[in-house]
Amino acid sequence: MRQKHNIDDILENGIELLREKGYNNTGVEEILKINHIPKGSFYNFFESKEDFALKALEKYVQKQFGYIVSLLGNRSVSPVERLKKFYTDMIEFNSNEDCAKGCLLANLTQELGGTNPKFSDAGKKHYEKIGSLIAACVAEGQMSGEITDKFEASQLACFIHNSFNGAVLRSKAGHSTHPMVTYMDIMFDLIKK
Amino acid sequence: MRQKHNIDDILENGIELLREKGYNNTGVEEILKINHIPKGSFYNFFESKEDFALKALEKYVQKQFGYIVSLLGNRSVSPVERLKKFYTDMIEFNSNEDCAKGCLLANLTQELGGTNPKFSDAGKKHYEKIGSLIAACVAEGQMSGEITDKFEASQLACFIHNSFNGAVLRSKAGHSTHPMVTYMDIMFDLIKK
Repeated sequence: MRQKHNIDDILENGIELLREKGYNNTGVEEILKINHIPKGSFYNFFESKEDFALKALEKYVQKQFGYIVSLLGNRSVSPVERLKKFYTDMIEFNSNEDCAKGCLLANLTQELGGTNPKFSDAGKKHYEKIGSLIAACVAEGQMSGEITDKFEASQLACFIHNSFNGAVLRSKAGHSTHPMVTYMDIMFDLIKK
Repeated sequence: MRQKHNIDDILENGIELLREKGYNNTGVEEILKINHIPKGSFYNFFESKEDFALKALEKYVQKQFGYIVSLLGNRSVSPVERLKKFYTDMIEFNSNEDCAKGCLLANLTQELGGTNPKFSDAGKKHYEKIGSLIAACVAEGQMSGEITDKFEASQLACFIHNSFNGAVLRSKAGHSTHPMVTYMDIMFDLIKK
């Protein structure tokens, strides 16, 4: 039977709060409030707000991994079409939120990665794992002749994904999907063989 | 004669604080402390912390503009070499800071652009101005046959600059210039004609 104060629910709610408001603008009181839990319960689950945010990030990324593996590993679709679907889905997701929230991994890396070693390390670990999934798909595209083979798959994957994060960031200024749509138009034209 | 509490000095110190710590992690008390000014002086210059950050951003971007205009407008160097110098200089700058701080415009857009209309609007305005300077250089490169003319200069400039911001963001995770160096290797190969 499901516990009343489930750590998964607290993290899920936390992910949304952190995506919207960022780390430093989210107080523990607010996390307690949206979850209807007392402070004691929070500190039963988490050592600190930092611990909570790292666990929320871990959960967020795990969910992303599951989605990316199923999408980018789907060999019934061409590698380029898989990559296009991956980024198009993210554009749609961001568009539905008026480009206001973005990616939790990118947000926390930007906000804390430079000054907090735990978030720098977590960001590196998560990005490397996501990068390897994208690289496998890029390598397939290079083998099948769809994607330029002028660069190592892992480097090109890094370039493709980081560049998308830059477009998502830019989309927050003015709440417009335009930078992400421009990304799609140009990136997939440039990387084709 | 120079005033003791000069608004320019307060903003300069503020820029560094905001770049390092972000908006929500920077308190007014800290701004007073590094500038050795009383609260009253701060509120003589600024309506609020938000007003202070918007003015600091304005000052930061104005300085960037001056640099970009002189660099990208230098017709004694080829358009592609100018663009390469622009981004190489930024990589060196970030490298000297252990990739810990990044760009204030990108940081504030990421942290606040989604939820605070003033920062969303400011980000849009500043990015459009920077974009137009880059676009002029890209257009020159297209005219001279150095840069692909498959895309509108303004769109390609947006893609080039947003993608670099994504690389800077990624560089905070693990404090490595590697994503920025990869950006240089791949971007300037892909956009050449």
